[in-house]
Amino acid sequence: MVGAGFGGLAAARAMADLPVDITIVDARNHHTFQPLLYQVATAGLDVDDVCYAVRGVFQRQRNVRVRLGRVDAIDPVSRTLHLDGGASLGYDSLILACGAVTATFGVAGVEEHAFGLKSAADALAVRTHVLERFEAVDARPDIVDAGALNFVIVGAGPTGVELAGGLAELVHRVLRRDFRSLDVAATRIVLVEAADRILGSFDPKLSARARRSLEKLGVEVMTDTAVAEVTPAAVRFADGRELPTQTLVWAAGVRANPIGDEGPFATVPSGRIVVNDQLEVEGHPGVFVIGDLAASPTSDGRPLPQVAPVAMQGGRHVAALIASRVGDGDPPGKFEYRDKGSMATIGRHAAVAELPNGMRLSGPLGWLAWLGLHLVMLIGFRNRANVLVNWMWNYLTYDRGSRVVVSSAELSAALPEASPSPRRHDPESVLPPLPEDP
Amino acid sequence: MVGAGFGGLAAARAMADLPVDITIVDARNHHTFQPLLYQVATAGLDVDDVCYAVRGVFQRQRNVRVRLGRVDAIDPVSRTLHLDGGASLGYDSLILACGAVTATFGVAGVEEHAFGLKSAADALAVRTHVLERFEAVDARPDIVDAGALNFVIVGAGPTGVELAGGLAELVHRVLRRDFRSLDVAATRIVLVEAADRILGSFDPKLSARARRSLEKLGVEVMTDTAVAEVTPAAVRFADGRELPTQTLVWAAGVRANPIGDEGPFATVPSGRIVVNDQLEVEGHPGVFVIGDLAASPTSDGRPLPQVAPVAMQGGRHVAALIASRVGDGDPPGKFEYRDKGSMATIGRHAAVAELPNGMRLSGPLGWLAWLGLHLVMLIGFRNRANVLVNWMWNYLTYDRGSRVVVSSAELSAALPEASPSPRRHDPESVLPPLPEDP
Repeated sequence: MVGAGFGGLAAARAMADLPVDITIVDARNHHTFQPLLYQVATAGLDVDDVCYAVRGVFQRQRNVRVRLGRVDAIDPVSRTLHLDGGASLGYDSLILACGAVTATFGVAGVEEHAFGLKSAADALAVRTHVLERFEAVDARPDIVDAGALNFVIVGAGPTGVELAGGLAELVHRVLRRDFRSLDVAATRIVLVEAADRILGSFDPKLSARARRSLEKLGVEVMTDTAVAEVTPAAVRFADGRELPTQTLVWAAGVRANPIGDEGPFATVPSGRIVVNDQLEVEGHPGVFVIGDLAASPTSDGRPLPQVAPVAMQGGRHVAALIASRVGDGDPPGKFEYRDKGSMATIGRHAAVAELPNGMRLSGPLGWLAWLGLHLVMLIGFRNRANVLVNWMWNYLTYDRGSRVVVSSAELSAALPEASPSPRRHDPESVLPPLPEDP
Repeated sequence: MVGAGFGGLAAARAMADLPVDITIVDARNHHTFQPLLYQVATAGLDVDDVCYAVRGVFQRQRNVRVRLGRVDAIDPVSRTLHLDGGASLGYDSLILACGAVTATFGVAGVEEHAFGLKSAADALAVRTHVLERFEAVDARPDIVDAGALNFVIVGAGPTGVELAGGLAELVHRVLRRDFRSLDVAATRIVLVEAADRILGSFDPKLSARARRSLEKLGVEVMTDTAVAEVTPAAVRFADGRELPTQTLVWAAGVRANPIGDEGPFATVPSGRIVVNDQLEVEGHPGVFVIGDLAASPTSDGRPLPQVAPVAMQGGRHVAALIASRVGDGDPPGKFEYRDKGSMATIGRHAAVAELPNGMRLSGPLGWLAWLGLHLVMLIGFRNRANVLVNWMWNYLTYDRGSRVVVSSAELSAALPEASPSPRRHDPESVLPPLPEDP
């Protein structure tokens, strides 16, 4: 199993009672609850609230091993994963669940000069940078003209919309009181979307409501606007206009993890690996792909959305399939995604939700539904309790508690020099361990 | 006011109702509750639980401005502070409250190869490094022989003792279950102290009890042991023995902030600035020094301990003095530190406390006193509530929730290239702001 996202965890948990040995490989030691990263970026939640150590998830599940590492190569002939650092792992079945990465669509400068919002580090980087922009303007008010307080978010899907709303609340409700001597009204939060409306996957009525909610919060929404280039100091649009900014978050889309294109399996142009209606790679029995990385056949021919429920349902499907192959239960039918609807929150009392039965929620009701669903989906009682405390705090006080900046520079400086390199010691001079139970 | 530690915050708060304009300068945007940093280092608490944005502390105190910056130089003649980046601030009164830094005592290699525990970044660096050591051994068990699981803490004052106890609980109660296939018993936690007993400032009976508690947790306590040199791979003791280790935390002592030695005021050899019994620098009326940085006269001639209560009492003393000078109340008598006692916790149900009336607490009673006092001293309801949730979680489950690693490398990688440099834009092409209230 490669990847400890929503799909990987769902698959491993669903195999808890099977007579199989599961090894989960992930480059990070934690599961990231990506839907709430925007709240970490806007100082509403802490990293430890929305991330969970993978080893902690499986402390009590005896058939799971966790291995920190990056997959360098997959050899489907010898059924071997090669990890960075030279180690390798053999497998009988392989579940690829390594998700998606930010898609730049080839726009110049995005890779180098834009922030992403796919990992805890991304979210912390955005938070730190935004707060530092305000500190910088506090020290040198003249840099406002250079766009120091212009925050641009590209892509108005749920991530971009939620980030824009969260940022507007942070600026206008919290930082306005933090920086009393600063003209916070000079702040511009600009949400840029190439299509003709925001939240394009939702009903147009909900898009319009979400747009009104955002504008009420002070967000400038620019639809029908494509980005041509991002530089460290500005964003240039396709029509030639430009906007000075030192902060551009690219939330315009994702593409499949590059492991697809670099690996031995056939992919579609978006980098997703082609699988059959069992999520198994044709010609490679025992190799499964789930979630954002899988291009599975659908009845209408449209690719499945790259969202958590698809990954979790895929994980459980593959677990059932493996169960049937080790003699536990009947094989499941072909994989079919059951749409659970989608939601996006804009801010206090404002969210939009679309249920599969066609029901639409917005306003306070949609917002409460959003809060409840996200609390329930978080892993672990401790994370839920902490998120609840922070949400109640944020709600009651209009405050955002997590405005603490620990920059990467400070973090690097705290690390001692020279990575430890094992070397031999003179056995004579080495201090022996104390006897046990002295 | 320079410094937003315990002393600086106490002074500024005590001047809330005075007709004065206060500017607090600090290099960080947050107050750090240093007594609980060891819990961040051992994955029991989050950074945002023990740090608090300075601007948040003073959102409602109208006579306080906050300025993020580092003091480059102090000119007491023109009464000017020069900050990094070229800005300067004039003052009528100056309160120096910039605390202390780790003291290496000139031991070779400490500066380069040891971890400190004075800031949030230090604590995160220790946490990340410890968890990465276990992941490294999980991938390559042979590096245990090179000391990958030997953790050395130098200095057995409260910080060293608390860190050793916290680390032992993390390893033996949490990581043992996280790394089931790994021989966690091979872990060595070694607390090294040059003096003949740990917690030298406490009564010898409490030292002995604390030592027994630590040893019960599996900590090896080495007293009468001086460190001669630290390398990336080992620590060498004064008697020539050495211990391979890739993790050495230096908690052997602090020295005054270098601003003392580099500044224009007279200092004692430890770097503390000489002040009179009003905490004012002789010859520089209006310049005050409080807390770890101040060398104030005492009745017994011994320097005051470098702990939070001294700084807080000093802050309130200077606030009263300034109040009297602006016509609000009588001048206070000379500054005298009222000892509130001291405490150190070793782990679950184990702590030692010494009250000024000579009363001594240990075991569960001392531990409860320690918990209560630290909860009360934390700033802000949100931080208290979060710490309480985490402590209850840790207590009830024997778990440590904050095992999420976001390394400085990952954080740097999340930052876009090129720091923003203000440049001129062609005014014609710049997007005008939308009209307000469209």
